[in-house]
Amino acid sequence: MDKLYVIKIGGNIIDDEAKLPAFLQAFAAVEGKKILVHGGGKLATRLAEKMGIEQQLVDGRRITDAETLKIVTMVYAGYINKNIVAALQKEHCNAIGLCGADGDSILAHKRKHPVLDFGFVGDVDAINTSLIRLLLEQNISLVFAPVTHDQQGQLLNTNADTIAQEIAVGMSPLYAVELIYSFEKSGVLLNAEDDSTVIPEITPSYYQQLKTEKKIFAGMIPKLDNAFAAIRSGVQKVIIGKAEQLHALLNNQGGTSITDEH
Amino acid sequence: MDKLYVIKIGGNIIDDEAKLPAFLQAFAAVEGKKILVHGGGKLATRLAEKMGIEQQLVDGRRITDAETLKIVTMVYAGYINKNIVAALQKEHCNAIGLCGADGDSILAHKRKHPVLDFGFVGDVDAINTSLIRLLLEQNISLVFAPVTHDQQGQLLNTNADTIAQEIAVGMSPLYAVELIYSFEKSGVLLNAEDDSTVIPEITPSYYQQLKTEKKIFAGMIPKLDNAFAAIRSGVQKVIIGKAEQLHALLNNQGGTSITDEH
Repeated sequence: MDKLYVIKIGGNIIDDEAKLPAFLQAFAAVEGKKILVHGGGKLATRLAEKMGIEQQLVDGRRITDAETLKIVTMVYAGYINKNIVAALQKEHCNAIGLCGADGDSILAHKRKHPVLDFGFVGDVDAINTSLIRLLLEQNISLVFAPVTHDQQGQLLNTNADTIAQEIAVGMSPLYAVELIYSFEKSGVLLNAEDDSTVIPEITPSYYQQLKTEKKIFAGMIPKLDNAFAAIRSGVQKVIIGKAEQLHALLNNQGGTSITDEH
Repeated sequence: MDKLYVIKIGGNIIDDEAKLPAFLQAFAAVEGKKILVHGGGKLATRLAEKMGIEQQLVDGRRITDAETLKIVTMVYAGYINKNIVAALQKEHCNAIGLCGADGDSILAHKRKHPVLDFGFVGDVDAINTSLIRLLLEQNISLVFAPVTHDQQGQLLNTNADTIAQEIAVGMSPLYAVELIYSFEKSGVLLNAEDDSTVIPEITPSYYQQLKTEKKIFAGMIPKLDNAFAAIRSGVQKVIIGKAEQLHALLNNQGGTSITDEH
């Protein structure tokens, strides 16, 4: 099986005018088949402020109302996605930017929740693996914005970490998939304030222990849950690490490996 | 050769919450291979106003400065393009939305002008026909936003009528291409205020005559120049007509036919 890299790039890198081009150069230089999934960064929040749209929070959770979805679609699927694609083309990496509606590539449904209405937030149902394979086999790299659709004409704001995991799992029957969550930190840290405290490897039992001992930064838990879901479902390797060290991460140097029990 | 429809949809239809879904239903129902090219409508202008960005006009011509390009990319390549794709998916038309950077599908350069600097405005150099054919042959319809790139990482605001013409011409060696400019009027009118004065056919010599007699609404001239350029360069048929009568136009009923001399 050919190798396929699914690389998620975090919002703090997207916002960084120096780090983003460097990261995209490194991504373009990765040999073989590759997919980039990007989040949104603070551009959407800033645009919402400029337009006088207030963030809806219910129980501390962000709600995607119609106006917020509009901004998410404009900023993530438009501005960020197309500028990333143009930057990759400059680096001679032929890329196509997609949201989940494009080619019906990511089918989702509006999140159902017994109490909260999250608004236009999507939970992923299916990945269109044949379309993705078609493009990858033409040596086209894919750049996914975190926007999906429900096949009823509705776009949906969708977590980028989850999209990366779902694509990685969906493509696993066709490729030897490596999933990389890259962001501003060097990996999963024992001390969130100290970038030298990277945990080199986390197994499910160690993960339980870290959670019990409350040694995992709460913000990392959804990412780690995604990572373990990927490993359980056929993804060969999951690494969490620093975007600025992309090639090192791909060569098993640095970052946190998420592994099954040995 | 298979038939290929390249259909441009004008801005006034994009802005119309009733007419746009009806048009997209009609587009989805067109049998065979098809490409939609959309303009922007007034959404971009409205967003610029909300954000307090002033339109730059030089000699009455709109200039695309960096902030305007950002809005164009967000609104055209993001909001409008992705909502059109989602609406087509609902109608069981498998579509992919692209700007010119995606798959290097439309290569352009920043417009050079001896006196005026139009800003980030693109003039088209080349269409990536092999990528477009690859997707069409998978029964995927393409939806193009009027944004191109220069292969140096720069996105460029580009006239949608021109993009439609360039795609139609570029695909002509591979398909029997019909180019349809659809908008709010019934065709090219002798009296711009009277929708019943449609000119059924315009040849190059009649076009010269109409221009000499100043019987053509000035706003129609760039569209007609595009149409004649297409006919001269291998496009089999060019029709200008009402978006609400798409199927009639495709069946040679109504609209204005642009033809070579008989």
